[in-house]
Amino acid sequence: MKIVTFSAKGEPFRLGLLLDDHKLVDPQQAYREKLESEGQGRAAEIAGALLPSDPTSFLANGPLAADAAEEALEYARRHPESKSVYGKSDVRIGPPVPRPNKIVCVGLNYKDHILEMKRDFPAHPVIFAKYAIAAAEPNGTFPLDSQLTQKLDYEAELAFVIGKKGKNISEADALDYVAGYTVVNDITARDMQKRTIQWLQGKTLDKSLPMGPHLVTKDEIPDPHALDISLTVNGELRQKSNTEQLLFNVNYLVSFLSGFMTLEPGDVVCTGTPGGVGEAQGKFLKDGDVVRVEIGGIGSIETRIVEEGAR
Amino acid sequence: MKIVTFSAKGEPFRLGLLLDDHKLVDPQQAYREKLESEGQGRAAEIAGALLPSDPTSFLANGPLAADAAEEALEYARRHPESKSVYGKSDVRIGPPVPRPNKIVCVGLNYKDHILEMKRDFPAHPVIFAKYAIAAAEPNGTFPLDSQLTQKLDYEAELAFVIGKKGKNISEADALDYVAGYTVVNDITARDMQKRTIQWLQGKTLDKSLPMGPHLVTKDEIPDPHALDISLTVNGELRQKSNTEQLLFNVNYLVSFLSGFMTLEPGDVVCTGTPGGVGEAQGKFLKDGDVVRVEIGGIGSIETRIVEEGAR
Repeated sequence: MKIVTFSAKGEPFRLGLLLDDHKLVDPQQAYREKLESEGQGRAAEIAGALLPSDPTSFLANGPLAADAAEEALEYARRHPESKSVYGKSDVRIGPPVPRPNKIVCVGLNYKDHILEMKRDFPAHPVIFAKYAIAAAEPNGTFPLDSQLTQKLDYEAELAFVIGKKGKNISEADALDYVAGYTVVNDITARDMQKRTIQWLQGKTLDKSLPMGPHLVTKDEIPDPHALDISLTVNGELRQKSNTEQLLFNVNYLVSFLSGFMTLEPGDVVCTGTPGGVGEAQGKFLKDGDVVRVEIGGIGSIETRIVEEGAR
Repeated sequence: MKIVTFSAKGEPFRLGLLLDDHKLVDPQQAYREKLESEGQGRAAEIAGALLPSDPTSFLANGPLAADAAEEALEYARRHPESKSVYGKSDVRIGPPVPRPNKIVCVGLNYKDHILEMKRDFPAHPVIFAKYAIAAAEPNGTFPLDSQLTQKLDYEAELAFVIGKKGKNISEADALDYVAGYTVVNDITARDMQKRTIQWLQGKTLDKSLPMGPHLVTKDEIPDPHALDISLTVNGELRQKSNTEQLLFNVNYLVSFLSGFMTLEPGDVVCTGTPGGVGEAQGKFLKDGDVVRVEIGGIGSIETRIVEEGAR
């Protein structure tokens, strides 16, 4: 399944599932219609409980929600006239997890990048946070305030989303706790990141984590460690690697993180970026730049930088 | 007002207000009873909307909720037999904000401590995060896993809680966005904090931010920069200072943080700790230790360290 959030006619973002390249379905509405067509009582309440419109609650529902979602998709395929079906071009697509419980980011984590920088492999993952306010739609704008930062940069990353609460999870069991994968751009103000010894203030600007275009459930990604990842700025290739280069892979990160804190449905873990960031090339993002991140098997996201500095 | 969360008979934590030293009130229930006694229709729905049981929603309701809360307190004072009134000893008190939108922590921020360490005053606040899972009840236990950390430490801090959404807030307007103040202990695993260059993993253990005993609304704290703060371990004084020693004060921090990210109701900002942390003395927390943090005008919190290392 490919999970999105969408907004029709300015309503709040809610859970959607892609039907095909051009259509998506509101699974709660489709499931309600299916139940009603079968003469089921309290169809709205049951559909609302099993397929909540908030993606984090949907993920927390686990297999019950996944089974109902498959039935909803099947219903929508058979009833293309249903009001649960929307044209993708008629709605606005939001981040697949609009208010992550946690956003965990992993620092230097691509072997090719570490080797090119002639650094040693770190003994432990370097992790840092972004706040939920950073989560942004996959194809939108980023508000640049050039009075605040003169060194805005990009970082293409594979992210995974937790689907099940857990602590002290083994590497062998790790993928049981992963709901799926998505593409993120860890937008970073390098000058703010480095003006103190902790990076947070340069990492957590509003809308600094464009995410999507959808969350692909793990059953559609047989190996998360064999995905091409690339980033362009205005069409110029800046980053290109493959997730086989991850030093600490998805299984390791789930086990590592859950070793000291409880992971919860809706947690987003960004696995780090390969070489080629703007800072290494002295090229920072400016008004009008278009940054595109693509990961094979998932999709691409595209963010336009827009100067909004005047306070 | 003194805002808490409480749980009666194992129910989920919900908003409460202190009535006196021994009693608290469920303001939603009291307000509902008040409306019903006046013959108001839909009393439950109105009370639920104005005085939601989740503290973050309550804070987001702003003056509407504050006014209704005062009426609820007045009703409860006149009707001590109301089922909205509880004995404090009959309920469990939770953290005043059980799921903070953000937990922002400020590093080295006490002038006396910086001077005693012979360091320069930093030009910008050093900030780092804890995740919401760290929020813990004011008088509870902390689960120590001594296989994970051998250097568990304490940090007494004044925290303020945001009550109103805002960005680019001036220092002059800052307190308009602050709901009130509370006491926290920023429990830290020093070895995990320092094994990588980013502190997060040593800062965000589950339950590592005991908080409370209540959130005191700002009208009861005429000057947040004149409060005595102290910490004891098993009765031995370890930290003692006054918030007049804050290098970056509450007004500055609100303005600084809102300069790069939107602040939201329910954000918790921990303002940093004075000198006397365990690490400086080579004394770390162990099984059975009792850590008490007190701030004048607010109250005290007490956490017992309990070894739960066996996985």
